Amino acid sequence: MKKQYVVIGCGRFGSSVAMKLTELGEEVMVVDKNEEIIQTISESVTYAVQADATDEQTIRSLGIRNFDVAVVTIGSDIQSSILITLMCKELGVKYVISKAQNELHGKVLYKTGADRVVFPEREMGVKIAKNLVSDNILDYIELAPDYSIVEIVALERWIGKNLRQLNIRARYGVNVMAIKQGYDIKVAVGPEDVIREGDVLVVIGHNDDLNRIDKS
Amino acid sequence: MKKQYVVIGCGRFGSSVAMKLTELGEEVMVVDKNEEIIQTISESVTYAVQADATDEQTIRSLGIRNFDVAVVTIGSDIQSSILITLMCKELGVKYVISKAQNELHGKVLYKTGADRVVFPEREMGVKIAKNLVSDNILDYIELAPDYSIVEIVALERWIGKNLRQLNIRARYGVNVMAIKQGYDIKVAVGPEDVIREGDVLVVIGHNDDLNRIDKS
Ligand SMILES: Nc1ncnc2c1ncn2[C@@H]1O[C@H](COP(=O)(O)OP(=O)(O)OP(=O)(O)O)[C@@H](O)[C@H]1O
Ligand SMILES: Nc1ncnc2c1ncn2[C@@H]1O[C@H](COP(=O)(O)OP(=O)(O)OP(=O)(O)O)[C@@H](O)[C@H]1O
Ligand SMILES: [Ca+2]
Ligand SMILES: [Ca+2]
Ligand SMILES: [Ca+2]
Ligand SMILES: [Ca+2]
Repeated sequence: MKKQYVVIGCGRFGSSVAMKLTELGEEVMVVDKNEEIIQTISESVTYAVQADATDEQTIRSLGIRNFDVAVVTIGSDIQSSILITLMCKELGVKYVISKAQNELHGKVLYKTGADRVVFPEREMGVKIAKNLVSDNILDYIELAPDYSIVEIVALERWIGKNLRQLNIRARYGVNVMAIKQGYDIKVAVGPEDVIREGDVLVVIGHNDDLNRIDKS
Repeated sequence: MKKQYVVIGCGRFGSSVAMKLTELGEEVMVVDKNEEIIQTISESVTYAVQADATDEQTIRSLGIRNFDVAVVTIGSDIQSSILITLMCKELGVKYVISKAQNELHGKVLYKTGADRVVFPEREMGVKIAKNLVSDNILDYIELAPDYSIVEIVALERWIGKNLRQLNIRARYGVNVMAIKQGYDIKVAVGPEDVIREGDVLVVIGHNDDLNRIDKS
């Protein structure tokens, strides 16, 4: 059976969650106390309800206990975010994910019963900072505390050589997993593949080794 | 020579960018009109200045033209964000990256001269939504419109089998690049590696193929 989602608070983060869920084919109810916001989003989600979600009667009457997942995205009003997270759990929502303003807020949300706490601004801030500092790294996933996958612009001296000649694994201790050439991507990479100008290599390895390439 | 960064606006996103840049060893000046915020962050960055960045005299006197990178993170006040982006470029900052509230704001920022526009709340919202809908996918990078790298929890029926037996490449058309076991990660994956309970596979492939695993 399909899961039922409720998104409480519809700022930039909340509306983006709600619209993407809807786009992915899910049933989504959105609650915001701001009438204008509700009107704007109403065509992009299954239900949009103008209500103050800190009011227990109100959210009971919305049948909150029937939802599988609640996403609590209220930001500035920390007290409301905590109260709403608590009520969602107590009323029986199976999985509650809440957005936190800061570390302390996050801790309280976990104590209150949140199943997962997210820090969207912080996570993106860290990502952008790493990106700015690195010369060639375009994007990354942290796989483990010390390992990442990065997208790295081919160094100038690599151009025209193939992977065997470059011997990247032996030289840097990292593995090339894919090569992007504009919108094309090659995911089965072999020793004969030649690096061309503007290629982006998708590389997996230890952070120290990856940084060594970036700074080299 | 080291790059000089200025972060204008120090909300959740701005402070996270500024603190991470500092942690990475960069020189960072932070400007916010809120005195309290400036006091809180002052020990975590190189300089913290309380000032209204829409005032041209003020930002001139901070020597803004000497900065290589400006990160404009003002959110709610769209007009200020645009004005400050414009001034940074006109005063000679080499690279200006600005945070947008919505699509329209983003377009205006580009026209105003921003070298890059970011939508932190939206990007994280999309990520969390995809994450909620998928059963097993923990994280992903979009490599190209149709290709991604995902972290996927090992399916129950994979447990106890090795990669040769599972024959994932032939069966799903995707490549396993690494296996995470708790905090450990194995980046040189071979046909004899056995999947254990709780393993997370790092897999690269076409989105359709990746989704087929997730839903299978
Ligand atoms: N008690 C409440 N009931 C319903 N909606 C609420 C309640 N309190 C706040 N909201 C709504 O939550 C939304 C997000 O809140 P707010 O703007 O404070 O967060 P934010 O962190 O700045 O959001 P974002 O960064 O995602 O734009 C707003 O649209 C606001 O109207
Ligand atoms: N003209 C200005 N000069 C300097 N700082 C400013 C100016 N206008 C706003 N700020 C500061 O910018 C910061 C971010 O602004 P705001 O809180 O509106 O954005 P936000 O999108 O809600 O931020 P976030 O989601 O990152 O917390 C605030 O700390 C605010 O004091
Ligand atoms: Ca807001
Ligand atoms: Ca925000
Ligand atoms: Ca970069
Ligand atoms: Ca704010």
